[in-house]
Amino acid sequence: MFLNLVIVVSVICSLIAIIYAIAKNNWIKRMPVGNEEIMRISGYISDGAQAFLKREYIVLIPFTIIVALFLAVGNTGTLRLQSISFLVGAFASALTGYFGMQTATKANSRTAWAALEGLNPALKVAFTGGSVMGMMVVGLALLGISAIIGLFSFIFGSSFTDLNGTIFPLLTGFGLGASSIALFARVGGGIFTKAADVGADLVGKVEVGIPEDDPRNPAVIADNVGDNVGDVAGMGADLFESYVGVIIGCIILGANMAVPDEMRIRFALLPILLAGFGILASIIGTFFVKAKEGSSPQKALNKGSFIASILSALFIYPIVNIVLGGYVVEGGFGAIEISLSAVIGLVSGTLIGLITEYYTGTDWKPVKEIEKACITGPATTIISGIGVGMLSTFFPILTISGALIGSFLLAGFYGIGIAALGMLLTLGIQLSVDAYGPIADNAGGLAVMSAMKSSVRKVTDQLDAVGNTTAAIGKGFAIGSAALTAIILISAFTQSVGIEEGTLSVTNALVMTGLFLGGTIPFLFSALSMQAIGVSASAMIEEVRRQFREKPGILNNTEVPNYRACVDISTQTALKKMIFPGVIAIISPILIGFTFGIEMLVGFLVGATLSGVLLAIFMANAGGAWDNAKKRIEASEVGKATDMHKAAVVGDTVGDPFKDTAGPSLNTLIKLMAIIALVIAPMLKTFWG
Amino acid sequence: MFLNLVIVVSVICSLIAIIYAIAKNNWIKRMPVGNEEIMRISGYISDGAQAFLKREYIVLIPFTIIVALFLAVGNTGTLRLQSISFLVGAFASALTGYFGMQTATKANSRTAWAALEGLNPALKVAFTGGSVMGMMVVGLALLGISAIIGLFSFIFGSSFTDLNGTIFPLLTGFGLGASSIALFARVGGGIFTKAADVGADLVGKVEVGIPEDDPRNPAVIADNVGDNVGDVAGMGADLFESYVGVIIGCIILGANMAVPDEMRIRFALLPILLAGFGILASIIGTFFVKAKEGSSPQKALNKGSFIASILSALFIYPIVNIVLGGYVVEGGFGAIEISLSAVIGLVSGTLIGLITEYYTGTDWKPVKEIEKACITGPATTIISGIGVGMLSTFFPILTISGALIGSFLLAGFYGIGIAALGMLLTLGIQLSVDAYGPIADNAGGLAVMSAMKSSVRKVTDQLDAVGNTTAAIGKGFAIGSAALTAIILISAFTQSVGIEEGTLSVTNALVMTGLFLGGTIPFLFSALSMQAIGVSASAMIEEVRRQFREKPGILNNTEVPNYRACVDISTQTALKKMIFPGVIAIISPILIGFTFGIEMLVGFLVGATLSGVLLAIFMANAGGAWDNAKKRIEASEVGKATDMHKAAVVGDTVGDPFKDTAGPSLNTLIKLMAIIALVIAPMLKTFWG
Repeated sequence: MFLNLVIVVSVICSLIAIIYAIAKNNWIKRMPVGNEEIMRISGYISDGAQAFLKREYIVLIPFTIIVALFLAVGNTGTLRLQSISFLVGAFASALTGYFGMQTATKANSRTAWAALEGLNPALKVAFTGGSVMGMMVVGLALLGISAIIGLFSFIFGSSFTDLNGTIFPLLTGFGLGASSIALFARVGGGIFTKAADVGADLVGKVEVGIPEDDPRNPAVIADNVGDNVGDVAGMGADLFESYVGVIIGCIILGANMAVPDEMRIRFALLPILLAGFGILASIIGTFFVKAKEGSSPQKALNKGSFIASILSALFIYPIVNIVLGGYVVEGGFGAIEISLSAVIGLVSGTLIGLITEYYTGTDWKPVKEIEKACITGPATTIISGIGVGMLSTFFPILTISGALIGSFLLAGFYGIGIAALGMLLTLGIQLSVDAYGPIADNAGGLAVMSAMKSSVRKVTDQLDAVGNTTAAIGKGFAIGSAALTAIILISAFTQSVGIEEGTLSVTNALVMTGLFLGGTIPFLFSALSMQAIGVSASAMIEEVRRQFREKPGILNNTEVPNYRACVDISTQTALKKMIFPGVIAIISPILIGFTFGIEMLVGFLVGATLSGVLLAIFMANAGGAWDNAKKRIEASEVGKATDMHKAAVVGDTVGDPFKDTAGPSLNTLIKLMAIIALVIAPMLKTFWG
Repeated sequence: MFLNLVIVVSVICSLIAIIYAIAKNNWIKRMPVGNEEIMRISGYISDGAQAFLKREYIVLIPFTIIVALFLAVGNTGTLRLQSISFLVGAFASALTGYFGMQTATKANSRTAWAALEGLNPALKVAFTGGSVMGMMVVGLALLGISAIIGLFSFIFGSSFTDLNGTIFPLLTGFGLGASSIALFARVGGGIFTKAADVGADLVGKVEVGIPEDDPRNPAVIADNVGDNVGDVAGMGADLFESYVGVIIGCIILGANMAVPDEMRIRFALLPILLAGFGILASIIGTFFVKAKEGSSPQKALNKGSFIASILSALFIYPIVNIVLGGYVVEGGFGAIEISLSAVIGLVSGTLIGLITEYYTGTDWKPVKEIEKACITGPATTIISGIGVGMLSTFFPILTISGALIGSFLLAGFYGIGIAALGMLLTLGIQLSVDAYGPIADNAGGLAVMSAMKSSVRKVTDQLDAVGNTTAAIGKGFAIGSAALTAIILISAFTQSVGIEEGTLSVTNALVMTGLFLGGTIPFLFSALSMQAIGVSASAMIEEVRRQFREKPGILNNTEVPNYRACVDISTQTALKKMIFPGVIAIISPILIGFTFGIEMLVGFLVGATLSGVLLAIFMANAGGAWDNAKKRIEASEVGKATDMHKAAVVGDTVGDPFKDTAGPSLNTLIKLMAIIALVIAPMLKTFWG
């Protein structure tokens, strides 16, 4: 009865989000597109992005089939159906990426056109474009989870034994599907976008001396395509994974609590209900994103997010209280403690975002220090940026540790799970804001490329400047939630595999070995993606140089560059180079689990999470800080075309793969490895007896 | 009876090493010094280095007094004597650093002079100079340990209860003294040397265009002083700490084994005996270091190390067998398994060295890839080097993990301790080879500065080229042994504080929070030392520029540069900037232990070890690889003064603080924090009841 109610409510909430996304998508389509020049260029971008995603998905089909077969063969009994839920999860993740990306490539041209009318119309189009992605992600994720629980409980029964023995393990298959696609989307998209970006910048800006987004640059379309497949589709898949992972992790922690079965069901289903209401709060928040002419778009976006957060914070306690009906767990926590855990998550997510903003924002000391280091050349620029990046790990880790220990003291491991969920409660609107960034960026690019009047560029610049801050905060959220999600998935793994806590001591040699081996994986993974950028950027540099050499008419606009050739280079290298890191991520936990056992696997996962989170913060913030140090110099009187600016460009170029490829991929890496362990938990249990 | 025998044997072995060092020091002094020009310049270097070390030690006096007071007040009963053993440890460490550095600054000029006679005489002087440092370190370390045990057991009695309850805890004070000095020596020396190096290179080589080691460069003396205080005194203190730490860790693990008290004493004292015979093997090895004219000096050095290793491997089993007398621990390990553990350590240390050589050596793929990346400029150079550094963590970690799990399976935690000891068994000769490097480097510098004939420079270049490889291998050893030492110290801590293994699960929220907090410390620490280099290098750059501007006669040799001003800048910033990172390292484990408890502290130490080892390998190898990529370009036909070379110089400059400041400091950091925990173990036990 309670189960049915939860399913119905959450299906309704998720359908509202999906309908919202579809309606907004149609609204975008109906907006005027502008002149033919914009249409033509934005058509190139849209075609390139679609072509890449299609080819990426085609490459992933054999992989998904192999994994599905592994799940069908490796499991026994009803657990074989994990292969089905895995495919559904993979499909849902791919669908959100594709849908969000398609809307984004439509919204960019319309934002540029709307900018003719002023700031607010342009902001509205760009944010609406982002919100399609945001709502689609949370809607499809929650729909998938509730549909799987609803459908399978209808087939197999809805007693606690059915739920815990059959249905929840099937749910982990859904999570694995989402995670696998996310990893490849992040790595592939990240390599694509940075190969194009580095190639476009180093030849176009530095060697030839034409401005950013100049249509004479052969790599300019590839660069803009990259924004869409990397920052929109990649980020969407990443947070789809986080959202699914955190809900599933919470469900399993709830189902394993030391309470009567009847209450276990309630603890397990509570996260679904909270997520559903979080979606509603996010949707309400979007209606408040309106900028007045002359005021900052940042304020408008903040207002929406803030209202969504307040609404969420308000409904948490009533819902928890209704679900638990005053029940208090032995040891002494109930509705109040659980609600506080959620609030801790909500607050600490924002805190990490603000810390990120401090270390990467243009107005603060760290970026100014890097700017100063640019005076003495590229070497001191790099040293200073690496210093800032490393230093910037401290306070986010302190916040994560505080959230971890605080929510644990309140409500045990379930509390940690709820805190992680709290961090993602308003994901719908957070992701809308995140996806708004690349749309505004692309709109600016289109304005330059189609030679629109300067007032348009002024508006899009205003929108874009905000986009950098939102991107920084979004990355902070992504890292914080990834850390907590990985932790609760690991904890859910130890509970579902039924290992005793006492055997998992850090001083156990097996666990310790696992910690070291796991710790090295994020380094290995980052190295591989950095090297992929190196190879693909070199190919891109040579291609762009070749075009300028062989078609001298490009520079005086008498010849059209071959954009497609550059898009093809990014596409091919991205698809080729994403395989090996992906396979490492998938194979290594399986290998360790089946050859060295569960103890080493737990150590392995914890080690990977630890070093992954540290590296991810380091790389994201160093990259963001270099980027903004360069922007400061470009905006200052010293200006471009000085040695100081050249040093800053070197910093920014090094930072690009840091912040947009290796860094974000680590988020998906640590979650994926943890969820793989969770999926193979039943097999490991059988295997090791 | 057995105790007395062990003390006598180990005192004899260590006295042999010390007498060897003193004799060789006198031999060096008797060697001809050469012409007046060399004497004058080498006098500058020697004076600068002595002045720095003296001022460094003076700065550390208040610190050592505070710590000694803390130990005297915080402890109760006989444990108050920890303050005495702490002071002895600190003094012994400072003494080795000073003595080794003084010999090195004498040996450099004599090596340059001996190079007039050919390769073998020069190699002999340089290696003998290094061996003074090597033997002094192992001799004083073992003498300190055996004297403390001997003296206090004479006073307090030599029953197992006396040893385990009073004397071994007093021994940890000795370790703490060694560790504290090591940390400051590493950080201070590292900042000194790199501030001078970066300043000398960026102005002298890049801006003014004069060659390396040109006496017209005002920072050239500071640069050479830096080699001595950083690479000789810093490294000596570092490995003195490792050696002391590993022996003490093994003693405590042996004393806590689940065997009768009589056997516990034997297990506890076995490491001292093994170390003593390792010293003898090292000394024998040094007699085989002889190069024939025309053959590679590498071969001569390898021969000495190899013979020492073989001798050590041969004597291990007989000694273990005599000490244990056929005893087999319940669970089934005895002399064979323990001996094999030592061999595992010996082999895996060499393996890590060889892996390091692969990633940083001029003849292998990684460095060639960085060289290729230099073609497309500094940005790709940096990306490629960071990629190589990150990738290079994998196999060393695999080796450390293999050693860890292999020795554990053979002989439990005691086995891990013995493996760590095995890695350092031939430290006497390893360190001789390490310290040889900077002597050869300095000799080359002196040859250039005093305008000796080109045949001399050819000989010193040959010696120096080998020095780079030996430095890489030495760094591999230093990191590997630091990792294992930290692990056994942590394990010794959990045993002496008497916490149950079961409460230390990685999934315990307290432990996990500790892991995260600990993991961030190496990042914080590296950031601080990188920033210190940034600040001090800027000051140095401005000073060198000022001198060239205000004394235009420097460049045509009509004015003498003010070397002392540059030495002063390095000295002052190094002394100022080493304090804060040092204090963090010392305070943080105490803070966590007394506020959040033992569980979080254990997590903290493990987290710091994990991320510290990973970062240390990453930074050391990235730095080494950039250095050699630059060397390849300088040796190639493309040569200097191209854009490619400029890109390589940027890489090398970024790599300098990586490999010579932040990276090596991390080794001492993780050992120091672990030994602090061990020292405060009795206080924590009392405090938490």
